[in-house]
Amino acid sequence: MKIYADNAATTKMSPAAIRAMMSCLEETYGNPSSLYALGQEAKETLEKARAAIAAVINAEPQEIIITSGGSEADNQALRSAALAGKKKGKTHLISTAFEHHAVLHTLKKLEDEGFAVTLLPVHENGLVRLEEVAAAIREDTCLVSVMTANNEIGTVQPIGEIGALCREKGVTFHTDAVQAVGHLPLDVKAQQIDMLSASAHKFHGPKGVGFLYVRKGVPLTNLIEGGAQERGKRAGTENVAAAVSMAAALKETAGSMAETEARLRPLRDRLIAGLGEIPHSALNGDAVHRLPGNVNFCFEGIEGESLLLLLDDRGICASSGSACTSGSLDPSHVLLAIGRVHDVAHGSLRLTLGEDATEEQVDYIIQNVKEVVEYLRSFSPIWRDLTSGKAAFIL
Amino acid sequence: MKIYADNAATTKMSPAAIRAMMSCLEETYGNPSSLYALGQEAKETLEKARAAIAAVINAEPQEIIITSGGSEADNQALRSAALAGKKKGKTHLISTAFEHHAVLHTLKKLEDEGFAVTLLPVHENGLVRLEEVAAAIREDTCLVSVMTANNEIGTVQPIGEIGALCREKGVTFHTDAVQAVGHLPLDVKAQQIDMLSASAHKFHGPKGVGFLYVRKGVPLTNLIEGGAQERGKRAGTENVAAAVSMAAALKETAGSMAETEARLRPLRDRLIAGLGEIPHSALNGDAVHRLPGNVNFCFEGIEGESLLLLLDDRGICASSGSACTSGSLDPSHVLLAIGRVHDVAHGSLRLTLGEDATEEQVDYIIQNVKEVVEYLRSFSPIWRDLTSGKAAFIL
Repeated sequence: MKIYADNAATTKMSPAAIRAMMSCLEETYGNPSSLYALGQEAKETLEKARAAIAAVINAEPQEIIITSGGSEADNQALRSAALAGKKKGKTHLISTAFEHHAVLHTLKKLEDEGFAVTLLPVHENGLVRLEEVAAAIREDTCLVSVMTANNEIGTVQPIGEIGALCREKGVTFHTDAVQAVGHLPLDVKAQQIDMLSASAHKFHGPKGVGFLYVRKGVPLTNLIEGGAQERGKRAGTENVAAAVSMAAALKETAGSMAETEARLRPLRDRLIAGLGEIPHSALNGDAVHRLPGNVNFCFEGIEGESLLLLLDDRGICASSGSACTSGSLDPSHVLLAIGRVHDVAHGSLRLTLGEDATEEQVDYIIQNVKEVVEYLRSFSPIWRDLTSGKAAFIL
Repeated sequence: MKIYADNAATTKMSPAAIRAMMSCLEETYGNPSSLYALGQEAKETLEKARAAIAAVINAEPQEIIITSGGSEADNQALRSAALAGKKKGKTHLISTAFEHHAVLHTLKKLEDEGFAVTLLPVHENGLVRLEEVAAAIREDTCLVSVMTANNEIGTVQPIGEIGALCREKGVTFHTDAVQAVGHLPLDVKAQQIDMLSASAHKFHGPKGVGFLYVRKGVPLTNLIEGGAQERGKRAGTENVAAAVSMAAALKETAGSMAETEARLRPLRDRLIAGLGEIPHSALNGDAVHRLPGNVNFCFEGIEGESLLLLLDDRGICASSGSACTSGSLDPSHVLLAIGRVHDVAHGSLRLTLGEDATEEQVDYIIQNVKEVVEYLRSFSPIWRDLTSGKAAFIL
């Protein structure tokens, strides 16, 4: 059996998204900035895509900036809010300890440039507490950035409540919704979101394209300077085909969101229950406030990398955490943020189910993870120490 | 007849580039950062593309950073050189007055941040003078950035000589080669180039992808922070399909470069001669040091925009200058830089021939431009003033 269970890393493009891209690449090749009909057709095609994208999150088309992906969108959102804040003497930024590196590394750079950064704790369940967001907001706070859903442990934050709080306090609110767009209901007006980042390849669109929603009136600064594309806020010839493909993918994925969730949630919970039978294992992140397809476990006494390779041999594509840092030997900052110690964090497994996951696949995964964990523990020196009483179990 | 003569704005994707992209979108959808086989296949595919791209400009694969296009590459190159310079107390940057806005606007921003910028003149022929580059280099100069070929008037600079001069003086040399890559022979080693920007859609690749060549040892700073992709220098899930498609397009376009040039140069010169027969017209930019497919004219007494729309009616896609600024009413900064006055610069026409251009097409363009210019002049008040002696001809 072949099971792609790493949909948080990237998704397979939908046939509709591929068709939309192809037709655009072949026919609509004009530069949208060109005056002649071929250029203007490309422009119209792009604007239709923008409107379709906006509609999914209840934004206005002119509030959508097409970017090269979620990381670019995050970088631009944070830099824009920081710069706008600085002009008013507000140089304090609030975020959380377990954001994506596109947010955390940008904050680090801003800190080096003189900004103050508060990273809120996310506690054992991987959830931000509203009262802690409120308490962190200062007179000089110019931005709160909290991700809608975490890319590793899938926890879903109370975005609407944070949005309302920020709006009331007059602080710009950004959310990295890369894992959420297309998968969770989002309404930028109702949830009072000022800026939102998304990436097409997380909802069956192409890689290399995403968008930044910026509420009308919220100041935006270019990350990429140059031509006057995207209302002068993002230079570079517009990637029409990718934008159109992103719109097609988003329409489709978001259109079946409710059915997908109804299908996936029980499968996810079956997977969580099955893996929970493995001794000295633990679910990472909240069991309820969680993306419908996300499962993340720690298994004591094993190395995540060996687990992944052996699962790959058995046809299961999974990851130990974020794909973006998979080359790194450091334990996941997300797992550390929810209080896992280094040794345990090293033995983590993320399984993110696709829309087409089946019960049969879930059972196959449970069976194989059980076998592989047992096999790996059979010659793990850490496990020997634990079982012989030389070291103490944590999980 | 339908003639796409705006290949400097964008090119039609080659069938090979479309095929390469499609096969990747359908099959190689893994995240290159993922450990399992599907991810590693994507990684291998990406690295093969990188090697193919590097080979065309005689670079090493690890010296190629895949970006979302030429603008991003320009922004990153300039910011990196500025930051590296600042660390050594070198805060002076040299460029030219007619660079692409991706360079000029980034320089403007750096100026606002405290850097000093010298913009060299490009004279009537649109060429930088080597002795003026040499004279501009100061003790605190950290970068010289001169575009290989201009996007509007197609003039080709003495890049190898500037490269040798910069290397001798110990100054980093960047060239925006967006219009040149695939169309002119480039050799980063022989020409002693430290950084070079390119964009795939200018050589029949897809939009939304390009690359930055950075010589080994030259410091590079992230423009986009986040994951550890592209040796940690450019965050965001790698756009494998676009990179592979870019490589396919570049291999093909660069592979037939000599034949294309031999075919296009006489066609270009025929077009220049034909349009030169129009009274009070003038070629913009050097007649010899010029991209093989580029023709750019000024016609006195007319508006460029009307000219373009009427040519479009006759099946000819052309532009008045850069597509990136076509929404703007300002005259081209390139034409102003070569000394055209505002009124004349407004009546400009850029025709950039594709590889498949024919003599028949060129003659059709000449005939139609002649007719349209004559028609527009027949009711132009400026032309009436000029012909009645109320105003003086400039061209």
